[in-house]
Amino acid sequence: MSARPVRITVVGGGSCDARTAAAAERVGGEIARRGGVLICGGLGGVMEAAARGAKREGGLTVGIIPGESGEDANPYIDIPIATGLGEARNVVNVRAANAVVAVAGRYGTHSEIALALGMGIPVVAFDSWAEIDDVIQAGSPEEAVAAAFELAGERSR
Amino acid sequence: MSARPVRITVVGGGSCDARTAAAAERVGGEIARRGGVLICGGLGGVMEAAARGAKREGGLTVGIIPGESGEDANPYIDIPIATGLGEARNVVNVRAANAVVAVAGRYGTHSEIALALGMGIPVVAFDSWAEIDDVIQAGSPEEAVAAAFELAGERSR
Amino acid sequence: MSARPVRITVVGGGSCDARTAAAAERVGGEIARRGGVLICGGLGGVMEAAARGAKREGGLTVGIIPGESGEDANPYIDIPIATGLGEARNVVNVRAANAVVAVAGRYGTHSEIALALGMGIPVVAFDSWAEIDDVIQAGSPEEAVAAAFELAGERSR
Amino acid sequence: MSARPVRITVVGGGSCDARTAAAAERVGGEIARRGGVLICGGLGGVMEAAARGAKREGGLTVGIIPGESGEDANPYIDIPIATGLGEARNVVNVRAANAVVAVAGRYGTHSEIALALGMGIPVVAFDSWAEIDDVIQAGSPEEAVAAAFELAGERSR
Repeated sequence: MSARPVRITVVGGGSCDARTAAAAERVGGEIARRGGVLICGGLGGVMEAAARGAKREGGLTVGIIPGESGEDANPYIDIPIATGLGEARNVVNVRAANAVVAVAGRYGTHSEIALALGMGIPVVAFDSWAEIDDVIQAGSPEEAVAAAFELAGERSR
Repeated sequence: MSARPVRITVVGGGSCDARTAAAAERVGGEIARRGGVLICGGLGGVMEAAARGAKREGGLTVGIIPGESGEDANPYIDIPIATGLGEARNVVNVRAANAVVAVAGRYGTHSEIALALGMGIPVVAFDSWAEIDDVIQAGSPEEAVAAAFELAGERSR
Repeated sequence: MSARPVRITVVGGGSCDARTAAAAERVGGEIARRGGVLICGGLGGVMEAAARGAKREGGLTVGIIPGESGEDANPYIDIPIATGLGEARNVVNVRAANAVVAVAGRYGTHSEIALALGMGIPVVAFDSWAEIDDVIQAGSPEEAVAAAFELAGERSR
Repeated sequence: MSARPVRITVVGGGSCDARTAAAAERVGGEIARRGGVLICGGLGGVMEAAARGAKREGGLTVGIIPGESGEDANPYIDIPIATGLGEARNVVNVRAANAVVAVAGRYGTHSEIALALGMGIPVVAFDSWAEIDDVIQAGSPEEAVAAAFELAGERSR
């Protein structure tokens, strides 16, 4: 079999301003250009913007949905995985990734960053929770994705 | 956006005899030929045979892994989703589907059939747990998949 | 430390007729008389009747709730554990037990029986799913609890 | 029915120094003296010290275990709830509480604080993650528990 594509989970708020959405869309686009699969929580805000960016570049998108129906997914998700797990889907969302990119966000995002770090999954942030140790800070969306791919390669999973 | 592909989850034992594996491989192949995404638990036995069948036909395969690492996935899984949830991944495995196809199996499979039926997700069986009400019995692997696609279409999710 | 009390999970339908409720109440009462902790899904029907029986005998009751709030628990639950996990709480409900007693029920109960058997946790049934291999059939609620305590003792967890 | 006891979840590291253990033990003792049920992750470090403190005061202790067996619980846990969910048990651990008290800890604890705040469950910290907004800082273990009871009362669940 050929090698699997790299899986990058993008985490961030379920609603966001236009500037953050633009950054998330660039993150998603860069993941797709590099041949990665974009995973996210499948809903709105940063999740939708990142998925839209990936689809514009012809990428593949997976949404790990907290609710009971794949119909909850935003229109840019190719494969919704409805979990019915509520917040516990955050655990699956980051566990599924080779690396995580965080774009802004509030407590849900914060929990995902802490969960990923506790699992040993690398986290790169753009404009998000700069105060957490062990989170790599990136200067642009493209730099964040580049760092995520590099870290993902160091620990294939 | 174009319509999403149909998602069919194949459930069955983590180890199986050659005859059951051949049936599972035909199930996976037929899902791919019809343009569906094959979802399964990502491990061996029926899961591996079904994924192998799907890949032979150029399909896309997703594995919902009980353990903590995507490396646990069989080689025919394109996108492993490591959950770390143990048996609770069975819930996600069926919740993610538009319809479920069961091939043989023991108690894990039995729980997935009951969980799916409890969620209102249709279940088609080939050579599996004939005694459960509401499970559609199919006469061949291809008939099982045809029935699953038909039932999936009646309730898009 | 003194030994922990035996934990028996009672599974059954979220609504039930008066005859089934009477049986479930006798199951709960006998668990309490024997000094066990009654665990259940915390909602109505068999769960509520069993918890009521346990409280009448001065027992302790735990409810593993599928929703997000402990307020969902029936009034006979001392310690609600809200999980927010939906059906995946079924996994926790049986995993937490030394043995399971099933009273009637439909697909949710069926999944819990299959999950328990898959985990190696003994299941005793009264008037429930007689067709599943490895489920011990009991002739009365009290016999079901006696068998559950005996099986729980053989495999302390 | 009489009112249910208040449920306080104590979160903190699975290993800790003697000073932190002494603080956690005081937290557990104060929860018991106030008639609360102590919930924790059931393992070592802060979890064990808090449970020990609660048992010294005659309290009731519940452990939400990440692994598959209640035998993993520390000896001061009365009711182990084995979940088999891995890190996703963190979600249940905080969801079950009326309020959370955090004592030191690293990324697991950090995720639990963020999850609780995301759910609207109040968090009081003693010597833990002072930088998170919305976490109430307490000057002593007893003050932390007093604040947790007060906040729990404002939002019964």
